[in-house]
Amino acid sequence: MQFGHIEGIKVGDTFESRKELADAGVHAPLMAGIWGAQEGAYSIVLSGGYEDDIDELNYILYTGQGGQDAPGGKQIADQTFSKGNKGLQLSCQYNLPVRVSRGHQIKNGPQFGYRYDGLYYVESYERIIGQRGFYICRFHLQSEDSINQLENKLKPSLKSSYERTIRATSTISRLKRNVKISENIKTLYDYKCQVCGVRLNSPSGPIAIGAHIKGLGQPHNGPDAIENMLCLCPNHHDQFDYYSYYIESDNFEIIGLEDFKSKKLNIHPRHKIDIEFLNYHKKKYFENNSLK
Amino acid sequence: MQFGHIEGIKVGDTFESRKELADAGVHAPLMAGIWGAQEGAYSIVLSGGYEDDIDELNYILYTGQGGQDAPGGKQIADQTFSKGNKGLQLSCQYNLPVRVSRGHQIKNGPQFGYRYDGLYYVESYERIIGQRGFYICRFHLQSEDSINQLENKLKPSLKSSYERTIRATSTISRLKRNVKISENIKTLYDYKCQVCGVRLNSPSGPIAIGAHIKGLGQPHNGPDAIENMLCLCPNHHDQFDYYSYYIESDNFEIIGLEDFKSKKLNIHPRHKIDIEFLNYHKKKYFENNSLK
Repeated sequence: MQFGHIEGIKVGDTFESRKELADAGVHAPLMAGIWGAQEGAYSIVLSGGYEDDIDELNYILYTGQGGQDAPGGKQIADQTFSKGNKGLQLSCQYNLPVRVSRGHQIKNGPQFGYRYDGLYYVESYERIIGQRGFYICRFHLQSEDSINQLENKLKPSLKSSYERTIRATSTISRLKRNVKISENIKTLYDYKCQVCGVRLNSPSGPIAIGAHIKGLGQPHNGPDAIENMLCLCPNHHDQFDYYSYYIESDNFEIIGLEDFKSKKLNIHPRHKIDIEFLNYHKKKYFENNSLK
Repeated sequence: MQFGHIEGIKVGDTFESRKELADAGVHAPLMAGIWGAQEGAYSIVLSGGYEDDIDELNYILYTGQGGQDAPGGKQIADQTFSKGNKGLQLSCQYNLPVRVSRGHQIKNGPQFGYRYDGLYYVESYERIIGQRGFYICRFHLQSEDSINQLENKLKPSLKSSYERTIRATSTISRLKRNVKISENIKTLYDYKCQVCGVRLNSPSGPIAIGAHIKGLGQPHNGPDAIENMLCLCPNHHDQFDYYSYYIESDNFEIIGLEDFKSKKLNIHPRHKIDIEFLNYHKKKYFENNSLK
């Protein structure tokens, strides 16, 4: 039970079977897609079986486990954040690396057997109604490698049908985000949260977050611009990102927080928010809260 | 102006002079130790000059710039979080990698010239009274490599006098922290903050942080145990880590927060806090708030 790379195993190494993958220490369970629960997920295997999955090589939308009538079968019950799903949720919260292996069954998998594709981080997760009408837990994973690096490492065993998706190249990486814009919005609001008005002082300066309304990375691909940002305290930032509330775009009312009923977002006259992004976030709020 | 590794430059590569280091794109300024300000710090060079610095190869305690009578001279004025110091503060807040190069002047430097030692992350920062009685900004940097990996990469050019410090090996890495303990304390308090009592709900579960009183990593090296932990909301976690307040160890009073004057920390009967750790944090609070 170890997080991170396994000594002696390189990204791109292939294995004949799940048994071989397990013997190598990459992924111990022979059937389950997720290894690890109560202290985070050590690894996952992608081998098809969930109709809601997306695989763009360096970005994966991964459906959690449970609620199927048979492995790889139909969704017939709700999923919860338990077992492996709990593991992936913890991996996100504690920012732990997850080993990813792909099987030959899927388009980005190897020609034969299973391939170790390196470390990914769970950027976010959600629990929404899937295509079959039941709750599914979904995890957004991003490779620690860029799409170019990953393609280079996996090239020998990628199928001839492999084709880079266009969306994958549009990701703004963490390293390319504009720190200045984020600092500007904090200064504009004097580090006061637009939801609750709190200004968190510390001896090395006030604490606030320049938060993106439509997230920067996949799957959202929102722009890194002040029209897409809010100045929030860490509490209301976390709750915003996990869809505890949304902002009504026609009157900027805060909806979903008990303590802020009928309250409106504080907006500086020089801060123009693009309501397109508020509406995007609202749509995600409804998905995550299973409302119509 | 680029974050991260420079294409074609390997960790351990050496350069004859600051000029060569600049031409390679590793660190542009020929004199200043920090490159980058308003959007984070791209790189730093360690070449001595600050008596408060600590260098354990994979961990660096780095004193910021400013306030010296001459480069490498005596501290004669306060430092502030401006220019390069602002850069390193932003690198911490936005979790951006900082390129580190070492000069031949220091014990862990190369035998000659300057050496590129790879990417480090600013884990925390503080502004305290230094040895000369003036404010200095200090940054705690941790290599993305383990001490073993780093020694291997740098071996050819390490001086014969290089000796691994004992403290460096005692670091608990992020990957070894016990997620279960942290989850246990959140469950014990039902995700309610021990300072303010708030329970932040979200559709995928309540949000709280299992926070270490004496930090896990360097320089604190606190234990990963429930006696050294608190259950806090993100706001009070950030303020705790940045010494906006402390907990008085004899009566558990919260000191330093306007809104919680004469209030006490909520403590569950089954949660034994070791006051040694509270006293350590209190000492750091006084250092960071420059009180005796």
